[in-house]
Amino acid sequence: MQELRERIVTDGEVVGRDILKVDSFLNHQIDPAFIQRIGKELAARFAGEGVTKILTVEASGIAVAAAAGLALGVPVVFAKKKRAVTQQGELYAAEIFSFTRRESVHITVAAKFLGPGDVVLIVDDFLAHGEALNGLVDIVRQSGARLAGAGIVIEKKFQRGGEKLRAAGLRIESLAVIESMEAGVIKFG
Amino acid sequence: MQELRERIVTDGEVVGRDILKVDSFLNHQIDPAFIQRIGKELAARFAGEGVTKILTVEASGIAVAAAAGLALGVPVVFAKKKRAVTQQGELYAAEIFSFTRRESVHITVAAKFLGPGDVVLIVDDFLAHGEALNGLVDIVRQSGARLAGAGIVIEKKFQRGGEKLRAAGLRIESLAVIESMEAGVIKFG
Repeated sequence: MQELRERIVTDGEVVGRDILKVDSFLNHQIDPAFIQRIGKELAARFAGEGVTKILTVEASGIAVAAAAGLALGVPVVFAKKKRAVTQQGELYAAEIFSFTRRESVHITVAAKFLGPGDVVLIVDDFLAHGEALNGLVDIVRQSGARLAGAGIVIEKKFQRGGEKLRAAGLRIESLAVIESMEAGVIKFG
Repeated sequence: MQELRERIVTDGEVVGRDILKVDSFLNHQIDPAFIQRIGKELAARFAGEGVTKILTVEASGIAVAAAAGLALGVPVVFAKKKRAVTQQGELYAAEIFSFTRRESVHITVAAKFLGPGDVVLIVDDFLAHGEALNGLVDIVRQSGARLAGAGIVIEKKFQRGGEKLRAAGLRIESLAVIESMEAGVIKFG
């Protein structure tokens, strides 16, 4: 997605060797019209797959997932990182390790929102080491739903999470693929 | 908002004396088209106020805030509950106590995203005791921005957070106002 690559170059900031900050339009401040176009593009890549539900994880994935869900006309479920006292009943759960936060996070989805009759598209803002995506794939597997694939806004290919998951048969569509960020220079794949 | 009140009655679930679960369309599973209409309605209530930015807090507020931001054509900033290692520079911060989670949460907003030139509309999914809204108001005050008001999806009036904040001069528009939930029966105001 050309507009996304341009925006990453203009507004993104490389921190250290492997962190890309895009907090001005994607994960702290959101540009709603741009997020809408991103969601539409992700939806277009999976049109015709019979998707019945989108799955993401709070918090940064929610806006993009909602935009994709609007475009596909399907509900969006976001995995929760903390269990609220209002959360009851059967849950699917997974552990994901966050390299940016340097800690493991327990994510849950109420079982009533995903089942064997569903065809699921996973949506997330970033794909790096693949920890979050692995956790979401695990939750889809627990639910018995069919997994149509994963739609990612920015994939940092050099962190190889996508490689492992594609080798395992997962279809992943990333709107911007970053090959390297050596010396602060972003190279797209 | 009639559609919202109907949806609360149809799909909402009263737990105990004061908890309303609306996780099938608002804060675990999202109905994107409905959220879009909710965002448009909130935007309409504050049209003409010269709003330049919407402020919410992760996670449940994000989808509604993004929809309102799309309708008003302004960026959305969501306060973060955890500091990522990528978060640097000056921050505005506040403490909010969550009654549903029974814990205090530290929220932050990067100072570069809110300043004295901004007119801010706060958007959130729930207003109960007013803790989250108080924290967001505090952050707007720290930034020097003008506060246009708060747009809330569901206000539980009997928990009186709105009362205190309105008395302090804040304009609050709530799309559904719940007067009581005695014996599981939802009464709107």
